[in-house]
Parts: sequence; C-alpha cells; structure tokens
Amino acid sequence: MKYVFFLLYGAFTLQLTSQTDTEVIRNIYSYSLSNGQSYQWLDHLSNQIGSRLSGSLGAERAVAYTKEELQKLGLDKVWLQPVMVPKWVRGNPEFAYIETAPGETLSVNICALGGSVSTPLQGLKAQVVEVQGLDELELLGRENIAGKIVFFNRPMDETLIHTFRAYGGCVDQRGSGAKEAIKYGAVGVVVRSMNLRLDDFPHTGSTNYGDTPVNKRIPAAAISTNHAELLSSMLKMDKNLKFYFKQNCRQLPDVQSYNVIGEIKGTEFPNEIIVVGGHLDSWDLGDGSHDDGAGCTQSMDVIRIIKKLGIKPKRTIRVVMFMNEENGMRGGNKYAEIAKQKSENHVFALESDSGGFTPRGFSFDADDTSFNQILNWKTLFDPYLIHYFERGGSGADIGPLKDGTVVLAGLRPDSQRYFDYHHAANDTFEAINKRELELGAATMTALVYLVDKYGFNDIKNTPQIKK
Amino acid sequence: MKYVFFLLYGAFTLQLTSQTDTEVIRNIYSYSLSNGQSYQWLDHLSNQIGSRLSGSLGAERAVAYTKEELQKLGLDKVWLQPVMVPKWVRGNPEFAYIETAPGETLSVNICALGGSVSTPLQGLKAQVVEVQGLDELELLGRENIAGKIVFFNRPMDETLIHTFRAYGGCVDQRGSGAKEAIKYGAVGVVVRSMNLRLDDFPHTGSTNYGDTPVNKRIPAAAISTNHAELLSSMLKMDKNLKFYFKQNCRQLPDVQSYNVIGEIKGTEFPNEIIVVGGHLDSWDLGDGSHDDGAGCTQSMDVIRIIKKLGIKPKRTIRVVMFMNEENGMRGGNKYAEIAKQKSENHVFALESDSGGFTPRGFSFDADDTSFNQILNWKTLFDPYLIHYFERGGSGADIGPLKDGTVVLAGLRPDSQRYFDYHHAANDTFEAINKRELELGAATMTALVYLVDKYGFNDIKNTPQIKK
Repeated sequence: MKYVFFLLYGAFTLQLTSQTDTEVIRNIYSYSLSNGQSYQWLDHLSNQIGSRLSGSLGAERAVAYTKEELQKLGLDKVWLQPVMVPKWVRGNPEFAYIETAPGETLSVNICALGGSVSTPLQGLKAQVVEVQGLDELELLGRENIAGKIVFFNRPMDETLIHTFRAYGGCVDQRGSGAKEAIKYGAVGVVVRSMNLRLDDFPHTGSTNYGDTPVNKRIPAAAISTNHAELLSSMLKMDKNLKFYFKQNCRQLPDVQSYNVIGEIKGTEFPNEIIVVGGHLDSWDLGDGSHDDGAGCTQSMDVIRIIKKLGIKPKRTIRVVMFMNEENGMRGGNKYAEIAKQKSENHVFALESDSGGFTPRGFSFDADDTSFNQILNWKTLFDPYLIHYFERGGSGADIGPLKDGTVVLAGLRPDSQRYFDYHHAANDTFEAINKRELELGAATMTALVYLVDKYGFNDIKNTPQIKK
Repeated sequence: MKYVFFLLYGAFTLQLTSQTDTEVIRNIYSYSLSNGQSYQWLDHLSNQIGSRLSGSLGAERAVAYTKEELQKLGLDKVWLQPVMVPKWVRGNPEFAYIETAPGETLSVNICALGGSVSTPLQGLKAQVVEVQGLDELELLGRENIAGKIVFFNRPMDETLIHTFRAYGGCVDQRGSGAKEAIKYGAVGVVVRSMNLRLDDFPHTGSTNYGDTPVNKRIPAAAISTNHAELLSSMLKMDKNLKFYFKQNCRQLPDVQSYNVIGEIKGTEFPNEIIVVGGHLDSWDLGDGSHDDGAGCTQSMDVIRIIKKLGIKPKRTIRVVMFMNEENGMRGGNKYAEIAKQKSENHVFALESDSGGFTPRGFSFDADDTSFNQILNWKTLFDPYLIHYFERGGSGADIGPLKDGTVVLAGLRPDSQRYFDYHHAANDTFEAINKRELELGAATMTALVYLVDKYGFNDIKNTPQIKK
C-alpha cells in the first residue's frame, strides 16, 4: 500500500512541477468551484455559531471552531494569539418612535451604534434637528442644537460606482456624529443607516467618542433608511415633533480573546511570511456572513487548496483570522506588534473583508516595482474575469503591518450589494452565493501562489512566468 | 414662460453638444443610478402582472402595459407588431414520486418541460434508466430503454467560469432528450434541471420533438437538482425502482400576440436603425424578473434616458420588446421578416437577455473593422468597471437580423447567479438588485450613445472621440 501511495504521490508532484502557471491557476479555480470548503465552513460559522461580536460567546466559539478546522488540515502549526478585546453589549432590543402629539406616535427601526452609551432608563425624548453632515453643526450653533437630538441624514452617494467610496463619503456621520454633536449640547444622535437602498434594516457600526469623558457621552443610534426618509418628511411638516429612543447597551471591561493562526512553513524561504486573512469577529446583528465570515473561510480555503493541490510553498503561508476588527482593531494591532517583536519578515499580506461576492480583482498598497511586477501577472487572471488591479487600500487588519517593504492587498469583489447587508440583521448566510464565494477563494489562492513562487523585487524571476 | 423655457433649453443643449463623451457617459450612469426607471417598471411587470408565457393573459397584459409606458415617454412612434404565437399551457400542477415498493413512495419536485405532451390521465409509472447524455442512448440500445423512463442526469460543469457555457454544454438533454429517447422506445423523459446549485426548484424550458408525429411524443419533465441527486442515489441501490409522474400540459392553437416597439427618429440618418431590446414573454414559473423582464425594462430605460438627457440621436433608436423568445422565437423572426420586407437598414442591435446582474461588458457579433472601432471605446467604460468586450453571440431575438453588415451585441452581466433562477419559480423580483439592474441600463445606454454618434465603418469619425 505504502509503495503505491508514494508512486502516485511522486507522479503527481512531478506533474505539478512541470505545470505552467496557467495550468496551476486553472486547477486552483476548478478545485475551488468543485471541491471548495469555504461555503460549508461559512454555513457552520453563520448558522451554528452565528454573530461573533468581540467578547461574546459567539466569538469565543468561532475561535475554537476555526482553530479546530485548521488543525484538521494538517498544517505545520496552528495556534491562538492572545489579545484583550473590548466587550460592548447591546442589551435589550432598542425601541424608538416619532411623536407628533402626546399619544400620537409612530414606531421606527433603530439600533444602537457600537460603543454607544445607553439612554436613561426611561429612554430619551427630545426635539430633532436634521443635518446633512458634521459641518452643519457649527453653522447651526449651540442655540439650535442644545437639548435636541441631532439627526444626521446625508445619504450615501448612489451615483458612485465604487460603493466603498460612497460609504467613505458618508460614514463620518456615524463615526464622529456623536462626538461632534456633544460639543453643541445635543442630547442624542440618530444617524441614517449606511445603506444604498431604502429598506427597514438599521445598520450598526462603531461610533467614536474620542476623549469625551464618559459622563458627557450621549447615546447614538442608526435608523433604517426608510425611517430616515420618514423622519425627514415628518420634520418638514412639523419641526417640533419629538423623537424618543431607548437603548441599554453598555461597555464592559475588556476580555481575553484570540487571533487564530495557522501556517505552512516555506521550503526555501521559511522566514519570508505571506499572510492571508479576514476578521473573525462580526457585529451582533445578523450572523456576519459577508462581514467577514466570508473573508475568514475564504482565507482558510486558500491554505487548504494549496495543500490539497500539492503545492509546496517556498515561503511561509500563514492564514490569520483577526479578532476585533469591528470595534477596536485590537487583533490586527496585536498581530503586527508581535510580528515586530519577533522581527518577522512579512513580504505580503492579503485581506478579504469586502463581502463574499463575485471577485473582480485586488487593490494593492505597494511600491512601484512590486506593483509593476504584479501587473505582469494580470493576464493570467483573464480567463476568470478578474480585471481590477489598482493601487489603493488593502484591509484594516493588515494595515498595521505596513513598514515600507511589505506589499499589502485587498480582495475587491463586486461591491453593488455589499451595503445592502453591511452591519445589519440581514447579513446572513442566505445572502451568500456559493460560486461567488468560491471564486473569491480561488482568486486569492492564485495570487498567493504567484507571490510565493516569484516573490517581490526579484527581477531575475519576473520574466520566468510560464504562461 | 415659453421664452424662459427655450432659453433654458437652448443653454442645456448647447452645454450638451460641448460635452465630451466621458462627460455624457458619466451623466448617463449618474442619471440611471439616481433617476432610473427600470426597477419600478420591473416591479410592476413582475409583481402586478407576473409571468408572461406566450399566449397567456400575463403576456397580453404586459404588451398593453409596456406600450402604454412607452407612449408616456413621448417617443416619435410607438406601435404593436402583430405576431401569431404558440400557446402551451401547463395545466394542473405536476406530481411525481419515486416508488421503491408498492405503497413506498417519495415525492419529488418536477415540472413539465415547455412544449411537452401530457402523461396519460392517470399518470405514467415505469422503471428508470439513468444516462449522462444523448450519446449513451445508442450504447444502451432499445433493449435497455424500451418501456422505461430515461433520466438525463449530466450536471452543468461547475468549473466553467462562464456559466452560459456550462448551460450550453448541458441543455441538449432538455432540448433533444425526449426526441432522441423516443427512437429507442422510451415512454417518458426526466431531465436534471439546468441549475448549478443543489436546490428544490425544477427548471422548465423548451423541449423539441422535431418532426416526431404528435401521437408518438412522450412526456418530458425537469426534476430539481436535489431530487435528481436523490433519484440517482436510489437507483444505485435499486435499479428496479419505479418513477411516477403526472402532468396535463398541452399545446393549444396559436394565438395573436405582439412585439412592442417604440422609437425616436434620427435627426441626420433616420433610415439607419439602432435596436435595443429584450423579450417580453417569460416562462410561467416565477415572474420572469431576470428572464427577461430585466432586459425589457432596461431597454425601455435606454430610450428614456436618451430623451431625458436631451440627447438628440442622429440615427433612429428603436426599443423592441420581442414576444415568444422562450418557446418559438416568433417575435424575433417576425421583426426581422418585416424589417426585410420594408428594406429597413439596421446598423446595430443590442439585446439584454442574461439577467439583471452587475454588467461586465458585451459580446459582439461584428466584422473586424466594426469590432476594432468598438474596442476604441472600451476605455470610456473603465470608470464603470465594464471590462468585457469580446466577440461572441449576441441574443436570440436579434439573431434573425443578421445580414453580414448589421453589428449585433449582447449585454454580458455577471453570470454566476443566473442559473439559480433561470426558468424556475424563484425567478422573482426579490432576486433583482436595483443598482445592478440600473448599471446594466446605463451600460447599454452608453454603448447606444456611442454607436449612434459615431456609426460604424465611418473611418473619418472614429478618431474624433472626445475623452
């Protein structure tokens, strides 16, 4: 039996080494689409474990589950990297209404923003001042804001093709709205959900009070886009209407959590590390299938596909599932801190944190030489309709690795549907398409394969790409 | 008032004529994403009218509705083009089970294939022979097939990136399975649904008996992919199991229907016609939102956006909603027949019939000169992530226009999810994303704008593209 095994194995590796890059990449895609594991892993993560907010039982279970699954893959090393994380809890479901006269109320859908303080126990009721952005606060001044709830209602720009740019142009209201409104005496903040479509889901996400003392902080909530439109329309008819909301979220002491890490040691350059990852934590609404269960299970499948296809990486390939991207970035910071302590040499890091949709390409944070080298590989991706190779941001968790030499990259899937689900109760497994997820895993694997094979800044190697 | 209107209008057209192509295309996308009409039209077509199988009340209502909506746009001409269409009706819901012993049955999900004959009134029960394709019939021979139901179970190839190629490689089982099985004495045909994922929806679609006499025809049904897997597994355990199915679909006499057409007359070359269209009929399961309500309402929006942006086309722009693409192609053939009778000069035709998903580009059926000219426009689409400009098929309805000079094109949206819904009960409005649909309409409009402005084979004009 053993003899036969080695014979077959030998034939397979022999065949592998003679394969062109075109052939290897074809195999990667075919294997991912026919024998991928990302969808099954995500099914478990989403449907058996569920949401994974830092410090929650779900997060703890996700750490245990993904570690166990990585161990089954027979990697060279699997470990947990301890990191203390913030623990914010939503408490009872929020409740809100618009009041046009005593007793005349209309319920609306809200959710507390991550990190928000609670309202008073009996809730908070006040008049509302609607603004389109932070800069309007100064124009309005304290006399128009003090004692009121500030309603930030600037919508995402629907004409932008890159929806992340629409998000970037809008999210200051959520991130800094409360912090800024406090300066003018506001008693609460309601923010239009970061959502390009009109629907009934409020979308959470972090708000940041900066160094505002805890006893000065005001509660902040997101309101669904439909109800933001409703509130705005009603304010036009009656600027004296009142808004009531009640939430009892709170910040608890930090708790112990972990980054989950597994690696295959490189055969030639074991000290050169390639990271592929996503973040294991999610918000507490929905089950975080797109954000970022997808990125985690795709990253796990990158290392699994490499092993299953018998690719022996020259460099060390490490899958990292970062903890606490959503409300603290502690995992990404800890990983980079330890890497620096150990003087680890990271040559490349790839993050998938833009949803499990059809992959379109990557954005790269790289020097000119490395980026030009990457562009040489672009045609290898043509058969897979991967066309987007642009410079730009990579991912929040791998950002702290940036040191002037490491090349950082982010998977860029089609972004049109992402903000339909982002941070909301409908970010669930049903919103995932198996093929789209698997194409993403394959695309990541193909890039990792090329980076491992050719390295960066190695001019000798570049022209040797076999097509 | 009139004076002011003309003043404003004059200023607007002045501005328009000085706009570069980049600016016009930017306006087209922005307008479609912020003021598109395709989604609202599709909502009505799908949710108020529903399925639109040729000859059905739904088809008739869709003709009336879309004609009326085109008339509201103030086009130069809107008309109905009469065409006789086949009328096939499904009758009562189908019913099927696998029987492993008398009384031991397991229900499975099937639907009659379009054009199929009914089973006998009491249904049809027979042993099953499973095959992977048409070519296995001859190998098995009459002795293994006569008196049995042939179960065509070759799945779509999940490793193909272009899912339409996977469909093309599989659909002969549905289209010709019955016709071929009849030759070997089969009594019925069950075909695995043309669906890349495993689920419970049977997918209909035409089967073609060719010139088999009516009294020799055998009933043909599609079975859901999950139940195809089940049937195959059970056959492995018991090749003598029996399959029962009952359907009372039938072919009625042809009925009167219509292509719906609207046009803007060209200012310079009114005899040069540009067609943009989709097919108004659908299958009777679901509401045909992706196939092809999306293509129809996108096409309507092309002509609306052109008008709304004040673009005065040089050539005649015609929107055509073809009737009976699904089970007869009568509308497409009739349109081409009349065009030939009238010696109309069609220079370009664009069809959207691949679902309302994020557009990726176009396939073109064009001579070298025209195709090279089109490639010159490709960079204008870069900001919209439209990258796929390839030669290939265009669309079934515009195919009959082919005459060696007309350029034909098909919109190519992301195809990963298309066969999840195609011809099945889940092809409903809920499966449509508004932005994706509107991006498709914008992409079509931009191409029509360029073709109208520059024409084809007009070497003088080509270098004048303003970027």
